Parts: sequence; C-alpha cells; structure tokens
Amino acid sequence: MNISILGGGGFLGRKLAAELARRGRLGATPITGLTLFDIAAPPAPPGAAFPVRAIAGDLAALPEAAIPPGTGAVFHLAAVVSAQAEADYALGMRVNLHGTLQVIDACRRLRESAPAAAPPRVVFTSSVASFSGGQGASLPDDARQVPANSYGAEKAAAELLLGDASRRGYLDAVSLRLPTIVVRPGRPNRAASSFFSAIIREPLLGLPAELPVAEDFAAWLASPRRAVDWLLHAAAMDGAPLGLDRGVNPPGLRMTVGGMLAALEAVRPGASALVTRVPDPEIAAIVGTWPAGFAPVRAPALGFAAHEGFEDVVRAFIADDLAATRAERGLAP
Amino acid sequence: MNISILGGGGFLGRKLAAELARRGRLGATPITGLTLFDIAAPPAPPGAAFPVRAIAGDLAALPEAAIPPGTGAVFHLAAVVSAQAEADYALGMRVNLHGTLQVIDACRRLRESAPAAAPPRVVFTSSVASFSGGQGASLPDDARQVPANSYGAEKAAAELLLGDASRRGYLDAVSLRLPTIVVRPGRPNRAASSFFSAIIREPLLGLPAELPVAEDFAAWLASPRRAVDWLLHAAAMDGAPLGLDRGVNPPGLRMTVGGMLAALEAVRPGASALVTRVPDPEIAAIVGTWPAGFAPVRAPALGFAAHEGFEDVVRAFIADDLAATRAERGLAP
Repeated sequence: MNISILGGGGFLGRKLAAELARRGRLGATPITGLTLFDIAAPPAPPGAAFPVRAIAGDLAALPEAAIPPGTGAVFHLAAVVSAQAEADYALGMRVNLHGTLQVIDACRRLRESAPAAAPPRVVFTSSVASFSGGQGASLPDDARQVPANSYGAEKAAAELLLGDASRRGYLDAVSLRLPTIVVRPGRPNRAASSFFSAIIREPLLGLPAELPVAEDFAAWLASPRRAVDWLLHAAAMDGAPLGLDRGVNPPGLRMTVGGMLAALEAVRPGASALVTRVPDPEIAAIVGTWPAGFAPVRAPALGFAAHEGFEDVVRAFIADDLAATRAERGLAP
Repeated sequence: MNISILGGGGFLGRKLAAELARRGRLGATPITGLTLFDIAAPPAPPGAAFPVRAIAGDLAALPEAAIPPGTGAVFHLAAVVSAQAEADYALGMRVNLHGTLQVIDACRRLRESAPAAAPPRVVFTSSVASFSGGQGASLPDDARQVPANSYGAEKAAAELLLGDASRRGYLDAVSLRLPTIVVRPGRPNRAASSFFSAIIREPLLGLPAELPVAEDFAAWLASPRRAVDWLLHAAAMDGAPLGLDRGVNPPGLRMTVGGMLAALEAVRPGASALVTRVPDPEIAAIVGTWPAGFAPVRAPALGFAAHEGFEDVVRAFIADDLAATRAERGLAP
C-alpha cells in the first residue's frame, strides 16, 4: 500500500512516519511507498524498507504528487494551529478549510481516474477544540460541536465535508478528534495549551516552568505514543461500522494539572518544585472553553486502545524525546 | 435600515420582499433601502415605500453591490437545492459552501471599512436536511447534524463558519433550519420532497397527484407564511441569548401524509380523491433519512411563533397562491 502523510514534517507526522518505517505494514498490508508532504520537505524516517518521497508545498495549492495515483491511505495532519488560526483568520481558513477541500478534490480525481480501486482511507486529525463545554463537561459521543475558536470551527466544518465525500465514495474518512497532546517535545510556544507540556518537559530538562491556571484545572489529554497508535488504528480499521458519522472521540485521559504534577514528582522526585504558579487570565479564558472530559463509548467499541496512565506518559517522554529535546535546544546532555 | 436578500428571486425571497414592502420596517426600525440579488435580477415588490435595487449575479463571485455599505441585515436564502446538489457536487459546493464564504468575506470587508457600525445581522436558511434520523426521530435542540446528503452537509458546514464569523464580530448570524416548506406554489419539480406540496396543490388545481410514500409517513413541515414570519423574527431579535450556538430549530409542524390529506379533504371535500398512491422506493429512500420530528424548546423561548394547524396552511395557500399558480401554469381560473 502507498501512503501519504500531509503535515509529515510536524512532530506527530515524524513520529507516525518513524512508526510506519518500523512496522513496514499498515494493519496486515505491506507498505510499498510513503509520500511525506509539508511546507518544507520532511526528513525521511530512518530504516524504511520502502521508498520515501518528500515533497514541499502549500496544502491550499496541493500538488498532485502529494497524493499520487495508487494511494491507499492519507494521513491529513496538516493544519494551522489554534492560536495562529485565531490571530490570522485568512490563513486558518486557507489551510484548515480550503486545504482540506484540496485533499477531497485530489481523492475525487484519483477515484475518477481509477474507478475500480477502493476509495483511499483519509485519517483526518480533528480536535477537542471543535467542542466547547469547559471544566464541567463530560461530553457523550453524540455531543454537538459548538466551537469557541476558529481552528475548531474549521476542523468541524472540514469533518462534515469529509463525511459527505465519504458517503459519495470519493474517499473513506475517519476523523479523529485528538485531545491536547502531552508531552510535546521541543520548545514552549505561543499556543494557549503550551503550558500543559511545558510543566512536565521543562522541569525534566532542569528548567523552570510557569503554570497559568489553578492546580484543579482539568484537561483531556493524549500522549504522542497513544495518538500515533490511534492514527494507525484509524487507517487500518473497518470503516463500515461508522456509518454516516465519520468522527471519533478517542479515549483520552482526563487529568487535573495537580495530578499531572504529582505524576511528574513520582517519576522524578523534586522536579515539580520547578513549576511556579503565575496566573494568566487570558490563557485561562481560552483553555477554559475546551471540554475537560469526554465519555467515549464508540471509540473503545471500534478498537481504539485505552489510554495509559500519566506516569507512563512522563516515562515515555523521557525514553522517546528528552535527549533529542536537549540536543535541539543546545542543553547539556 | 438597508436590507439585502440573497436569493431574492426565489419563492421565499419574493414573499419576504413583499412582506418587507408591506410592513415598511424590520422590527421597530424603518427600512431605508432593499437590495435583491439572484441569478436573474429579481422583481421589485409592489408598493415599497423605499428604494429597491435588483442585481443579477453569481453568489460564488458575489458583487460588492449585493451587500452595499450601510447594510444592517442580510437574508441569505440563495442555494442549490437538495436534489441538484446531490446530482452536481461541484455546483452544490460552489454555491452552498463557497457562496456563503463570499457572504462572510463581504460582511467582514464592510466591518473593516466601518468599524464603528454594528455587524450586520445575517439570517441564513439552513435546513432540516442537515440532520438525519428518519421516521423515528424527535430531535432535541442539541442534536448533532449528521447529514445524509451533500446539501445538508454544505448547510451544516456553512452554519459552523457563520457561527465563527459571528464570534469574531464580522457579522451576527442566525441560522434557521427550515423544515420542508408546504405548500409551495408553481409546478411540481424533481426535488425528492416535491410531492409534499404536490399532493395539496395539484388537487386544489383540479389535477391528479402521485403519492410515493405510505399514508403514515411523517414529515417536519412549515408553511410559507410561517417561514417568512420566522425569517423576519430572526432578523430583528436580540442575538445575545444565542451565545456561541447560532443555529435555531424553529417550531415546525409534524404531519403524516394521511393527516395532510385529511386536512385537504376538510377544506375542499372530494379533493383528496385526486391523489393516487404510486410507491417510489427511490424517493422514499431519500426523504426517509430526514428526521420526521423535532422537539424545539429554544426557538419558542427565543420568540419564534408556534406553527398554525394544517387546515390553516391549506386555506392560506388558497388565499395567497392558488390564483397566481393557475395563471403561471396557464390553467383556467
């Protein structure tokens, strides 16, 4: 099977490509080629036993080579993230909405040129930010998406159009509404959710971190390992049980900030002392609209694996990403 | 106040323009000008005490004059209808999705050129076809929109983007999810829902009509009078109680086909004998996905008027549209 990853240069895209290279197959099907697409040509994963092609370009002017003929699965991870889409409306619409329409059109053209082939599975990363509800929420699978930010609105609209394209047979979409991913490697950024990773990552690097919300603030999280595992399951699963509704709320982990810090302390005693409470009402207002919890029933029944505990999340970051993050940031090993 | 009607040449647009001309005000505010936009320049309503400007054009290449500076309210009724959007995917996407994006951009430009003005109220006609659920459904206000047709998916996606544009202050949207409108004047057409009007209109013209579904088939309906009344209420109401969720399920009327025919018979004895049962599994399959009922709580609380009974619907068609339909179709008066 030929696979494309749109957004293959991002943090999740690179982890996904590495896992595809390691496994050599998607479900039971051997991988015969991988196309990686991003703004800059993404690096090839080490040790791939199949040809890898890296392409640079603009999602909203998607080149045909990004989803070449014979593609069986597309991971569509490319996006302008929440804070950026809020700050630059035109850019968010261009990439998150019109870019996804380009993906639909590309799949539709593939189908027209090879009507006998099965429609390509498109795994789309939608987001918890497509919902609102805030701290009190424990959203059921059939909760309405009433987004409180442009990123979430663009993701929810894209889900609807991917669902319709699936019904029409142009493609076969599974939209995964990913929780906030923790622990992100690399540096703190300006995203409102940046602190969720920073309060774990920075102390493990021996650096201070600021906590802008109260310790009892809760969030719906997923680890990078679990997110990659879900993406691979979404790509290989039988789509028929989804029916018309192609969106899935995966079984994330509801954690309070206090619980996260307790897990950090259990894994690395003393580390949580590097976290200082510095209230930031602006950040609290943004992340305060996101639902703090879900009650997923459908995703476990569809075979999406349950989430590991948060101490395991901290240990996995240490095992997978800590050394690379040190090196990237020029810190002593 | 200056008002624009996009889709001002359609059946609802013409009725709405006529009612604006009759009232001379929107809520308590005097109307100072009306712009009518459609593929062909719409006719001006008779007796308007304000200037009326008719413009022809393509919604997906919306001319600036369709929503001129100083516009306080936009009725966005322009659409490619369900059967046509299903048959021609590109056309449906172009008008129903990209056309609505043009409306958002036009309102955004107005705001940027006059930041002190209030954002224009945009009343958008979404549809019951943006839901599924079928005969057993009695959908609550917070039901997810899981459309089973491209028209409904485009409408639901447009709602999300209008909601986000409202949150950002580019405009101030109210999306009315209109039920199937009965009794439509004019001729039968190829829309799957055409028969709901035909089984009333045709017998009143002395003509036969075919019923493609069983007599116990139920549908969620609204009369043209009620739809116009709701549109005017949506344009004048206080938007603040809507919060982030700008979509409204108005209080339509759940009727079985048998109940509709009984009302016809009560108003015009003998007329229902002109209706013949001719099962059509294809039509039954399409209309069978639409929800047969809703349980609206929010719309009545927001001041949307309750629906009149179906005998009144039949009488209103006779009073408002029967003579004009006879004339249009060249039938003896």
